[in-house]
Amino acid sequence: MDIYMLAGSPQENVILPELHSGQSWIGVDRGALYLAEKGVHMKAAVGDFDSVSNSEMQVIRASAEEVITHPAEKDQTDLELACTWAEPWAGKLYIYGALGGRMDHSLFALQLLEAVQIPTVLLDRWNRMELLRPGEYTLENTGSTYLSFLSVTDSVEGLVLSGTKYPLRNASLRRGSSLCVSNEWQGDAAFVRFSSGLLLMIHSTDPA
Amino acid sequence: MDIYMLAGSPQENVILPELHSGQSWIGVDRGALYLAEKGVHMKAAVGDFDSVSNSEMQVIRASAEEVITHPAEKDQTDLELACTWAEPWAGKLYIYGALGGRMDHSLFALQLLEAVQIPTVLLDRWNRMELLRPGEYTLENTGSTYLSFLSVTDSVEGLVLSGTKYPLRNASLRRGSSLCVSNEWQGDAAFVRFSSGLLLMIHSTDPA
Repeated sequence: MDIYMLAGSPQENVILPELHSGQSWIGVDRGALYLAEKGVHMKAAVGDFDSVSNSEMQVIRASAEEVITHPAEKDQTDLELACTWAEPWAGKLYIYGALGGRMDHSLFALQLLEAVQIPTVLLDRWNRMELLRPGEYTLENTGSTYLSFLSVTDSVEGLVLSGTKYPLRNASLRRGSSLCVSNEWQGDAAFVRFSSGLLLMIHSTDPA
Repeated sequence: MDIYMLAGSPQENVILPELHSGQSWIGVDRGALYLAEKGVHMKAAVGDFDSVSNSEMQVIRASAEEVITHPAEKDQTDLELACTWAEPWAGKLYIYGALGGRMDHSLFALQLLEAVQIPTVLLDRWNRMELLRPGEYTLENTGSTYLSFLSVTDSVEGLVLSGTKYPLRNASLRRGSSLCVSNEWQGDAAFVRFSSGLLLMIHSTDPA
């Protein structure tokens, strides 16, 4: 089962129509309030809810099958706890509302991609990000303007890229290199392969 | 000499009063147009300027001591080229307008901190980020609500943190750990020390 999460980052980054298409949602902290107020039913609401009032908490409880609360002073972030909760039974995670505003939260959400053991996509209105491990991937053209790759580890080795404006053949991509920033799709699909390291894939479009 | 850069990310993230205080500015691509339109004199304007019209380019030229243009199809980003240009003679870099919008650009700006050989600070309205190399640092309280740390490398070792709500003594911080997310200042200054790895320091405040 695909699971959609909404965390509490600035909500102008969230694509509203997607909230109403009968998906299985988990609301994370203030993201749960946002979903509840939009009439979206949740499988679960997860968070410390320390910025949510009692009456707002009632709104959340009325829309969620399960409410999982944690203390505000804890070693894990609300998003991390929500992922841990969903991981055993979710097929794929789509996380909205984790980007924008506080960069410590945004960047930690990105690092979380490395820890989560199921396919996970981090999205906002202009970006769609996935962490790729060594292997071969066929990438469906999502209609983004750009297709970029950054190395998360010291380097990514044996990088092959085709079906893009700038192809690569057995390249080495170190962290800090802009070699694969602002590449573009050339058809319905692209192909990427690499032998070692962790590669962050970013589909992005310029804000209007 | 401290150098302030403004790149072309969504400008609502930029703190406007800071643009007018007689600092030495470099405008990067559309950031140069923004500075010129605000009447801010620039030491240089750097970019491919492929989204800037001829009349806008004239506005930029009138406000910049030097205009450095590059082809649109290149292996380096405009921000990277601006940093390379400033690095030999700048004491410290403050980079605005590199966060928000396209995450490939935002994240590459962060990776750039690793490549730039002079102290560099990446800022927006709610965040101030610096990359720390092994050593000892006294951190001045900037008034941010949170003080967070993330490991950029596989791990940061021998991490000591004091003057914060949650101190640490000889800890190991791996990439993907939220151990140092949402720490808080306790006084005018905090102290951090570590022996290996690269540590990203983030001063952040919740958006209003």
